[in-house]
Amino acid sequence: MRVLVLGGDGYLGWPTALHLSENGHDVAVLDNLARRGYDDELGVESLVPIEDLDTRLQAWQEVSGKQIASYVGDLLDADFVFETLRDFAPDTVVHFAEQRSAPYSMIDRQHAVYTQHNNVIGNLNLLYAIAEIDPDIHLVKLGTMGEYGTPNIDIEEGWLELEHNGRKDRVLFPKKPGSFYHLSKVHDSHNIEFACRIWGLRATDLNQGVVYGQQTPQTMLDARLATRFDYDAVFGTVLNRFVIQAVLGQPLSVYGQGGQTRGLIDIRDTVECIRLAVENRADRGEFRVFNQMTESLSVQGIADLVANQFPGPVQIEHLDNPRVELPEHYYNVKHTGLVELGLKPHLLSDTLIESMFDLVGANKHRVLPEKMIPTVRWKGAMEVKQPQ
Amino acid sequence: MRVLVLGGDGYLGWPTALHLSENGHDVAVLDNLARRGYDDELGVESLVPIEDLDTRLQAWQEVSGKQIASYVGDLLDADFVFETLRDFAPDTVVHFAEQRSAPYSMIDRQHAVYTQHNNVIGNLNLLYAIAEIDPDIHLVKLGTMGEYGTPNIDIEEGWLELEHNGRKDRVLFPKKPGSFYHLSKVHDSHNIEFACRIWGLRATDLNQGVVYGQQTPQTMLDARLATRFDYDAVFGTVLNRFVIQAVLGQPLSVYGQGGQTRGLIDIRDTVECIRLAVENRADRGEFRVFNQMTESLSVQGIADLVANQFPGPVQIEHLDNPRVELPEHYYNVKHTGLVELGLKPHLLSDTLIESMFDLVGANKHRVLPEKMIPTVRWKGAMEVKQPQ
Repeated sequence: MRVLVLGGDGYLGWPTALHLSENGHDVAVLDNLARRGYDDELGVESLVPIEDLDTRLQAWQEVSGKQIASYVGDLLDADFVFETLRDFAPDTVVHFAEQRSAPYSMIDRQHAVYTQHNNVIGNLNLLYAIAEIDPDIHLVKLGTMGEYGTPNIDIEEGWLELEHNGRKDRVLFPKKPGSFYHLSKVHDSHNIEFACRIWGLRATDLNQGVVYGQQTPQTMLDARLATRFDYDAVFGTVLNRFVIQAVLGQPLSVYGQGGQTRGLIDIRDTVECIRLAVENRADRGEFRVFNQMTESLSVQGIADLVANQFPGPVQIEHLDNPRVELPEHYYNVKHTGLVELGLKPHLLSDTLIESMFDLVGANKHRVLPEKMIPTVRWKGAMEVKQPQ
Repeated sequence: MRVLVLGGDGYLGWPTALHLSENGHDVAVLDNLARRGYDDELGVESLVPIEDLDTRLQAWQEVSGKQIASYVGDLLDADFVFETLRDFAPDTVVHFAEQRSAPYSMIDRQHAVYTQHNNVIGNLNLLYAIAEIDPDIHLVKLGTMGEYGTPNIDIEEGWLELEHNGRKDRVLFPKKPGSFYHLSKVHDSHNIEFACRIWGLRATDLNQGVVYGQQTPQTMLDARLATRFDYDAVFGTVLNRFVIQAVLGQPLSVYGQGGQTRGLIDIRDTVECIRLAVENRADRGEFRVFNQMTESLSVQGIADLVANQFPGPVQIEHLDNPRVELPEHYYNVKHTGLVELGLKPHLLSDTLIESMFDLVGANKHRVLPEKMIPTVRWKGAMEVKQPQ
């Protein structure tokens, strides 16, 4: 199949492109290189050095004998989007090309506006391009488990069969997102569902849990194929950050009491989930949703897991939670759709987090410890004047 | 109370500003005059001539002795939004300042992008300005009944108490909006609910039905105080358009079989609903939702009503529905919140639509009949390539 991976230079887009290429698909990547720009803005770098996109693509060709085409440009540039879809003529578009950090979206007004504008309008341009150029293209769109929030009911996969006053309907699962970033993904989902409904597009929306890990079978083939590994308080995800703190001998920074629970997924399962979604297309007019996660843990539980597996002493500290979220809550997520398509999850209990310790150990001289301190606070805009 | 009316030069914003001023509030209007620009773009004008904003404000001062301040600028200009809120220091912001036509949003990609960008980012700037300048400001935000779509269950006022697998939660009512415009309002609602949750803002979201009528007690005081009356297929609302078609001796243009049902509201009730929301503030942290409509009719029922009341022969024609919507559906809307605050609805059965016939008769020489033909089709982007 011809697969265009949007955001194919990013943390997950890049290993996804490799995994799809390895599995016989004809792959191209599209990226505006914005993720590298956020590094410059925030004064950080991936813990593991990464090569520029051309070098990566060249290395993949050397290692695998397979070519991945690249299109460098922005989804906000509608002409570029239309030209790329016409030129590459994909069967499937995998869409990772959004600003994906909740704290980044909460820095201030400008960053909230940037995030919603970039994500919502970029996705809207893409929907129009697909509808006008080839409505048979399957859109595989990355969303996040954070869209749901933490409802007091079971979280279904995107849709909910409900009964109210004796009548029934099937509705989009009601969401309560936790940041302007998470909100942008909810907005996207609504726009996509509408495009499926009125234009007969086919889409798969993947509500992904927090991803951990940095290596896939393909990225391990050559150092030039490495993907990013973020540890800073803005872009670093929680398990990855704890591993780095353990190796550095710093206390693991749990926000609040750590009772808040997250859905998690191993990076190797992420790329496999995308392959399964690509190879099992949604129907025309179908807005299909999967919860792309394999297990749930509390933040305290993740910290305990890392502390227990690290071969040395580890402290855990509790910081004031910079986010606004429930400290304790019910969390029960249905995530059987991708398993039914064939996913064989890597669970944390079976995973050698030690391999991550080694990876971090080899790169620990690159860490800027002050970048791990959370400075973005959800109540930021309110600091001048508190509610009465 | 000090009330800033955003979009205060528009169809409903203007009479709302007058009604609030008449009722003793200290009112200012903010507007970027975009609605007048859409007229230029589409080659139409309000059926009833309207004066420019300065003339209107001057006339109101002459007629009432009351002053309304004006701020001309754009919600997309964050500096302007912050400066205006600092300068006028409102207790309440009433937000009408969004692109409000579903067909306009469906013209093409540019108009969809314009609508979502304008509405979502303008509202986001406003939320930040309120949070940073004075989080005690009450935001009264105009939404639309079209956000809900036509679910097979009763439509509650914004929130839904639901039970699923034996557990309960109170969630935002799941919505299925019918255009990129309606979607922009859903996005707004999610952003506002989040701002109430994390910053403790106070907001009232008004899901308004289709408004009919053109005169309020204040606009009737002087011809210079008239508000717009749109009849074109892009901005004209259904009952108003049927009245105009009847007067012109044209067939009333029902889309499809006319079984689709709409919530309706008289313009005099709209301005009164806003007053009630302004004078009965939401609590800090509360995202309060009212369904601002007074009765439901099918489109065929609205056509029959106009035909029956018109003193002469009226034909009804059925056009291909340019929208994608269910031809027949369940529609039962709860709308008791505003009545509990004191609204005494004007219902269609008690209303002299004849007064609208007179108004249209006096201005019928201004009609451009070709502008009443629907040209925007929801499946537009698909015309090149239909789904298989």
